Amino acid sequence: MTAGRPLAPDRPPESAPVVVLSGGVGGSKLVLGLSRVVNPAALTVVANTGDDFDHLGLRVCPDIDTLVYTLAGLDDRGAGWGRAGESGNFMEAVGALGEDTWFFLGDKDLAMHVARTRRLAAGERLSAVTRDVCRRLGVTTRILPMSDDPVSTAVETVEGRLPFQHYFVRDRCRPAVRGFRYDGAETAAAGAGVLEALAAEGLRAAIVAPSNPFVSIDPILAVPGVREALRACRAPVVAVTPIVGGRAVKGPTAKMMRELGVEVSPVAVARRYGDFADGFVLDASDTELAPRVTASGFRALTVNTVMDSLDDRVMLARDVLEFCDQLSRPAAGRRASR
Amino acid sequence: MTAGRPLAPDRPPESAPVVVLSGGVGGSKLVLGLSRVVNPAALTVVANTGDDFDHLGLRVCPDIDTLVYTLAGLDDRGAGWGRAGESGNFMEAVGALGEDTWFFLGDKDLAMHVARTRRLAAGERLSAVTRDVCRRLGVTTRILPMSDDPVSTAVETVEGRLPFQHYFVRDRCRPAVRGFRYDGAETAAAGAGVLEALAAEGLRAAIVAPSNPFVSIDPILAVPGVREALRACRAPVVAVTPIVGGRAVKGPTAKMMRELGVEVSPVAVARRYGDFADGFVLDASDTELAPRVTASGFRALTVNTVMDSLDDRVMLARDVLEFCDQLSRPAAGRRASR
Repeated sequence: MTAGRPLAPDRPPESAPVVVLSGGVGGSKLVLGLSRVVNPAALTVVANTGDDFDHLGLRVCPDIDTLVYTLAGLDDRGAGWGRAGESGNFMEAVGALGEDTWFFLGDKDLAMHVARTRRLAAGERLSAVTRDVCRRLGVTTRILPMSDDPVSTAVETVEGRLPFQHYFVRDRCRPAVRGFRYDGAETAAAGAGVLEALAAEGLRAAIVAPSNPFVSIDPILAVPGVREALRACRAPVVAVTPIVGGRAVKGPTAKMMRELGVEVSPVAVARRYGDFADGFVLDASDTELAPRVTASGFRALTVNTVMDSLDDRVMLARDVLEFCDQLSRPAAGRRASR
Repeated sequence: MTAGRPLAPDRPPESAPVVVLSGGVGGSKLVLGLSRVVNPAALTVVANTGDDFDHLGLRVCPDIDTLVYTLAGLDDRGAGWGRAGESGNFMEAVGALGEDTWFFLGDKDLAMHVARTRRLAAGERLSAVTRDVCRRLGVTTRILPMSDDPVSTAVETVEGRLPFQHYFVRDRCRPAVRGFRYDGAETAAAGAGVLEALAAEGLRAAIVAPSNPFVSIDPILAVPGVREALRACRAPVVAVTPIVGGRAVKGPTAKMMRELGVEVSPVAVARRYGDFADGFVLDASDTELAPRVTASGFRALTVNTVMDSLDDRVMLARDVLEFCDQLSRPAAGRRASR
């Protein structure tokens, strides 16, 4: 079972609940695949909000929006973020007024930020706003902010501390990374429904998407109660590698690992999740690393994890779920043994 | 001198300061004409802010924006408001999110509202924001908000009280009008530079633009100190009719006058300004009303006041200024005599 696709014994119904922890671009690909494999309404996504920020006076939630647009079929497939058929008339005009232009806000996308900012200022919670937005855009999958309280990821670099979007977008991940902070996480409450989803009766699987461990998954895990809920989860917990062949599929994950002195390898990613994950999904190109993953106490699955096409997304989703089903009802105390 | 164009004796230099009190669409036409006749930097516009409002969480200042766009050459000539070559992608997207769509915010125009809202929230005053916006867009004419404090025009209608934009845009001026309120005006301070502009050394003229007297000019006059400054003004004060041939050139002025039981006539408009204006400009088509205007204590000028083309705007601006120059240095106490 360390390589190849497992068989699926008495697969649970497609309406059994599944939870995914996800960042934006990479995670949304697997989430889209999962939404085609299970009943989309049975799928719950716990979304990273650590890279949310206030920009031009508007509350921008990049990961939530990428998930919403992807599931609503409004996403820009090429970019992986933002909306398809987007225009930049606002951006050009706001630049002429001397405002910052390093973070692109398309004319259509802007509607999301303006509506959200208005509603948050009126006292609505981010979870309620997100739920209503999903309803209006026909998204039946539940997208839950990891917290309704603001948590801000900051990147400690050799040039000083940077708010995440300044590091990521403005400075294009150039400064070498020394560490991360998730400001506000310690006192944040888990988002509405998050802990309940992980403790749900009949949960089929909890999946950690192939998102950046430092700036997409760790912020979620930093919210009090989430890590504990994953440890206590009665369903199998499986993580999917964001590292393939020694490189990040997308984004700065590999660069960050190098700068932090961590081996750029799925093994290193797996170990970060060792206290709560049962299984780990490696890419088929990293088959030789599977024994090291299993030696770290995980069940391992090696399949194609690179999701270029919609078929790739659906295939990986199916593979991951079947892997989870194989891990069902593990022996009590399995996680305590590590 | 009650009809025909007056001669211009020893015209003051084009750099002598001129002040205009203005609303949006109608006023901006005359302001544009004036900016072509005098040094634009010598021109100061005191702009109505009574129809400013918060919409989708953004601070919208319709009259200031119409003036800015017009003077920057960015205006939509056809509509008379908003920007040329505008797109509505934001509007369509925000409607899909369930937000109000009765007030159109174009993608380019939105930049103004987002930038202004951000800056006001950061503690800048509306006058400072407006000054900086003008500088960035190459507008050398000074556009001064009538106040930096919020003043909200409300329309008392037979169906109840309506915020101005709800009456004007959402309900298309349909409900019959019973009166007006300028909430906040009593305690508002005149905008930065407003009273100083009216008391400026060497002021050539103070002009009341052909704007709606009830919802464009009266809010300005309701700000403490403005009416007094006009009365005390050492330069001639001249108003231009917004009523031509018994109809409003643009907007609901005539409808409002009818509903208030006021004669729909330039004579009635002139009388509203009787305590501070020296001269009144009627349209040539209303020549027969000139004796009634003069009988009310005004010097009267009858010329073409309908500004369809840029030439019309420039011509009227020149006519009005020459009229003002003829009224220069009136006998002391002229206004007290009425």
